[in-house]
Amino acid sequence: MNNQQLKHVRINDRFWRTRMDVIRDVVIPYQWDALNDRIQDAAPSHAIENFRIAAGEAAGEFHGAVFQDSDVAKWLEAVAYSLITDPNPELEHLADEVIELIGRAQQADGYLNTYYTVKEPGKRFTNLRDNHELYCAGHMIEAAVAYFYATGKRRFLDIVCRFADYIDTVFGPGEHQIQGYDGHQEIELALIKLYHATNEAKYLKLSQFFIDERGKQPHFFEREAANRGDDSLAPWVDPHYQYHQAHLPVREQDKAMGHAVRAMYMYTAMAQLASLTKDQALAEACRRLWDNVTQRQMYITGGIGSQECGESFTFDFDLPGDTSYTETCASIGLVFWAHSMLQLEKDRAYGDVMERALYNGTISGMDLEGKKFFYVNPLEVWPQSCENRKDKQHVKTVRQKWFSCACCPPNLARLTASVGQYVYSAEDEGVYVHLYISSEAEMEVGGQKVKLSQTSEYPWEGDITLTVTPEQEANFTVALRIPGWCRQPRLTVNDQTVDLDAFMKKGYVYLDRNWSKGDRIHLSLPMEVELIQSHPSVRENSGKLAIQRGPIVYCLEEVDNGSNLQAWMVSIDTPFTVQFEDDLLGGVAVITGMAERVDTADWGDELYKPASSRTVPARLKAVPYHLWGNREPGEMVVWIREKHS
Amino acid sequence: MNNQQLKHVRINDRFWRTRMDVIRDVVIPYQWDALNDRIQDAAPSHAIENFRIAAGEAAGEFHGAVFQDSDVAKWLEAVAYSLITDPNPELEHLADEVIELIGRAQQADGYLNTYYTVKEPGKRFTNLRDNHELYCAGHMIEAAVAYFYATGKRRFLDIVCRFADYIDTVFGPGEHQIQGYDGHQEIELALIKLYHATNEAKYLKLSQFFIDERGKQPHFFEREAANRGDDSLAPWVDPHYQYHQAHLPVREQDKAMGHAVRAMYMYTAMAQLASLTKDQALAEACRRLWDNVTQRQMYITGGIGSQECGESFTFDFDLPGDTSYTETCASIGLVFWAHSMLQLEKDRAYGDVMERALYNGTISGMDLEGKKFFYVNPLEVWPQSCENRKDKQHVKTVRQKWFSCACCPPNLARLTASVGQYVYSAEDEGVYVHLYISSEAEMEVGGQKVKLSQTSEYPWEGDITLTVTPEQEANFTVALRIPGWCRQPRLTVNDQTVDLDAFMKKGYVYLDRNWSKGDRIHLSLPMEVELIQSHPSVRENSGKLAIQRGPIVYCLEEVDNGSNLQAWMVSIDTPFTVQFEDDLLGGVAVITGMAERVDTADWGDELYKPASSRTVPARLKAVPYHLWGNREPGEMVVWIREKHS
Repeated sequence: MNNQQLKHVRINDRFWRTRMDVIRDVVIPYQWDALNDRIQDAAPSHAIENFRIAAGEAAGEFHGAVFQDSDVAKWLEAVAYSLITDPNPELEHLADEVIELIGRAQQADGYLNTYYTVKEPGKRFTNLRDNHELYCAGHMIEAAVAYFYATGKRRFLDIVCRFADYIDTVFGPGEHQIQGYDGHQEIELALIKLYHATNEAKYLKLSQFFIDERGKQPHFFEREAANRGDDSLAPWVDPHYQYHQAHLPVREQDKAMGHAVRAMYMYTAMAQLASLTKDQALAEACRRLWDNVTQRQMYITGGIGSQECGESFTFDFDLPGDTSYTETCASIGLVFWAHSMLQLEKDRAYGDVMERALYNGTISGMDLEGKKFFYVNPLEVWPQSCENRKDKQHVKTVRQKWFSCACCPPNLARLTASVGQYVYSAEDEGVYVHLYISSEAEMEVGGQKVKLSQTSEYPWEGDITLTVTPEQEANFTVALRIPGWCRQPRLTVNDQTVDLDAFMKKGYVYLDRNWSKGDRIHLSLPMEVELIQSHPSVRENSGKLAIQRGPIVYCLEEVDNGSNLQAWMVSIDTPFTVQFEDDLLGGVAVITGMAERVDTADWGDELYKPASSRTVPARLKAVPYHLWGNREPGEMVVWIREKHS
Repeated sequence: MNNQQLKHVRINDRFWRTRMDVIRDVVIPYQWDALNDRIQDAAPSHAIENFRIAAGEAAGEFHGAVFQDSDVAKWLEAVAYSLITDPNPELEHLADEVIELIGRAQQADGYLNTYYTVKEPGKRFTNLRDNHELYCAGHMIEAAVAYFYATGKRRFLDIVCRFADYIDTVFGPGEHQIQGYDGHQEIELALIKLYHATNEAKYLKLSQFFIDERGKQPHFFEREAANRGDDSLAPWVDPHYQYHQAHLPVREQDKAMGHAVRAMYMYTAMAQLASLTKDQALAEACRRLWDNVTQRQMYITGGIGSQECGESFTFDFDLPGDTSYTETCASIGLVFWAHSMLQLEKDRAYGDVMERALYNGTISGMDLEGKKFFYVNPLEVWPQSCENRKDKQHVKTVRQKWFSCACCPPNLARLTASVGQYVYSAEDEGVYVHLYISSEAEMEVGGQKVKLSQTSEYPWEGDITLTVTPEQEANFTVALRIPGWCRQPRLTVNDQTVDLDAFMKKGYVYLDRNWSKGDRIHLSLPMEVELIQSHPSVRENSGKLAIQRGPIVYCLEEVDNGSNLQAWMVSIDTPFTVQFEDDLLGGVAVITGMAERVDTADWGDELYKPASSRTVPARLKAVPYHLWGNREPGEMVVWIREKHS
């Protein structure tokens, strides 16, 4: 399902609906204030003002990052998704005004970018490597497509089509065109969306061009740098452009490298192109990269990007929890990619990772009130260390109000507002259920409309009821993802047990039958508390276990467990209890258990002494990782020491 | 014992004598080549050339760091110590020539610093904060004092006295004097040495002045910066000058902060001043700082400085093994300080730490051949991580040939060449034995000469024999340090058992008796293999144990134990065997034991799965930490996972 079809999914899930309400009621208004420099104590964004200046309606200088325009675009995209689920004429009017402003800032030839219009006129497309010019274009296109689907209004879509048409004249294989691509991938996936919205094949072709050009020799970034007489490189950029995933032609890449968000956006476009064009070499590259990311470089939270320098991947099994970058945007990008891999082929490996990122490493980026954000999502925090060590300076121990580089908050807003598009997909052969989010959906299957109604208390309980309502009785398939974390799934259709093994393929159970109105599927996914271990080559997690229940990864916080969380130990025999606490953190399943702690009572002043490990039993309390830091600040750990029993 | 008395200690210890030979035969000639830019593939030092230019005997520019002169000084100091133990007319002649060159580079008023003479004439003493001017002076003074003791020649001493006299006119409480101090402490301890060598009280007073001025408000560094119209600060310098230990008057300091080497040099001077002047407030500050460093901020190897940024201390219990700085020079500084604390009061706490640093974190800085050096001494190395992660870029996985900032190699050379001075001390009441290093010593006790002869296979065996030979029978005390690591020490005098408890005070056993020629003390210090744990607040070492035997801290290397050293586990029941291997690493006691390893055989491709810890028994082999990296490069760990049994 893409965001065109989002209109046909209504979320009424307690877990997600609450978050969507926060996006609508708090985040979107807050971000609007931010874009207009009305947030006290936060760095001014200047983003709207830049458009006014570019439109000739205000005087002044461009301010902000070269990609400042993208904040406005991401805000508009979130607004569009919100308008789909929660119509709001006032908000729509405001968005229309912003779109008109954007239109007035567009140049006569279709070009649209306030940095190059205001600050460096005449220098368009001279530094693709560093200046995010096509990245901004991509976000503008994504926003316009979403707004078109949300409102049916073509104004914004027309603006970005004119811009894309202009880009199509500048870039391409022709003699007077640029054989190049952007330093920060984004335009590639945006052009595919534009293709879907307009049916204009040229946009798909242009996306493909950018993907195909990447990493070719002689290297575009070098030719481009020579043209502008510039031999500088930012300290985090390597001379082979792994940082930009431009070190090799994309079909030859097999390890995720460089800036994690850029990688995700590129892999997303690659997977979609492979699916649309049946490009097998591209599909194979996607699968190799997928395996590398998810089997070698992904945190248990769905976080990616192991180091701050370059906000980047490092190497296989390098997954430190306390110095990771694990940017919110990177996990969001992983959701995009997983979703696109599901378009390429139905395999729960993709759905499982999509779920892992959605329920853990993405939403950890925002507090419950929607007012504070994490850019970096560590798996282990010792506040004193983050405050005192330069190498942990990027790890914030409490969520921040707003960032000077404000990519994550609006990205999370658009993801949350559009979560409906990830739940189902409608294919020729039938309907797929990828996620368990209470909702009403309407899809077209084999020429007729089918309604699906899903209810559960997911992610806290694994009992899911789906009601299938075709317009009339018909033969088609309903396929459900059986999550990889579930050991004993059970499924009934109209109370008749289905032998799952018999109908499973790559983690999806295929229910192919004659469906009548009101047929009821009941899926039971027992959620046991599980202790998870990492591949032994993840040295950082040696001798440590993480608590997971269903799709939710848990953590220990100091507020519940005292300071020095490294003193805690669990064993595979530790008995755990799950209790839903309605008043805690917006309602949450809490896990407690009698574990053990190092006994520090009589230690004394010595720094080192002969081993005499003494532990005392103590009650441990774990809360979902994505909710950490919503109470008193303090220590946090995901990976807990294992006591071998 | 100070280096004046070094002349009266002859080392014939297998362990140290080998290292002293390497210093004499390899390091001193190699460093001479380095100072003269004759090492291929190493950054040119230019240090000797700078003196030629300053002397007007060569043309050209100053090259190198502002403290380049100190490399020449440290080389001369090492040469001096080497000449004491191994007379070498040729080397002495070479040193004399260098000293003459230094003399010719000295300015008419006594000033001596090639940077300010050649590169910034007229700017003397305008940027004490950053430019190491008095630091270089201090090293020149230390070298000159050592050379005077070694050769009896006054030429070099006269040069530095003229320089010190000049400094004494520039700095002081007077109206036209500078009320300031150097950014890098060193002159303070050097002036005390100069005072001992010359008996000139003004040098002691000047040292005291520098110590007393430090940290006073209004802040000298700010006044100085304002004078030169400079408001820049290096990124590692904090605005309160904790980096320089100038955030508070020294008597008010109670936590070690900032650059670890600077701290050590300052604390060394403070302890010596406290001892010489009976300044109780200063002594108290020394004790508080000592407790903070050794009970809160010291690695088990005697390494100090937990982070690369600022090469500095961080905060209590922050002791990561893989990102530490633990500079060789800082551990050397800790030896100086411990030695000075022993002058202040006899307590084995000081001797134990001196021994810990000497046998572990200092000598790890050099390879067995004396040709390669570590600046940073990590306790955990995963080469792939150091090569790929920016936050571990400072951690080298193999020793390096020479450094552009070449402080550590010559510092280690002078420490090793002068190790004799740390073994004994002669006080009014008798003789102290602080270290167990086979040697012959001659001391004056109560007006008569006493010879001490010490033999052992230390640090591999703990059986020590001391023969006491006074000129004639006399009453005096021989006090021996009973190392804190020893659980069951035994001592006999002429085969008669001494009740240690009855004669122990602060870890020293006091043998007060009538000594005759040839009286024999036999001290037995059984060396058990011990598993050591860290204070529970050292989160980095939670659930981990280190292997120690006697004063030697052990480590695992990949060459002996395969890759992924984090897969190893030991328990307090693991049976260990000690075997001396003559052919390994120059002769070394190796520790082996049947431990356990995580079984990784059937893991598969998954990154995360439910816990099912399986371990297999495997033979672990540990070698002394200070010798790591002398064979094939690979992983190394000091702290090994504990399996609770």
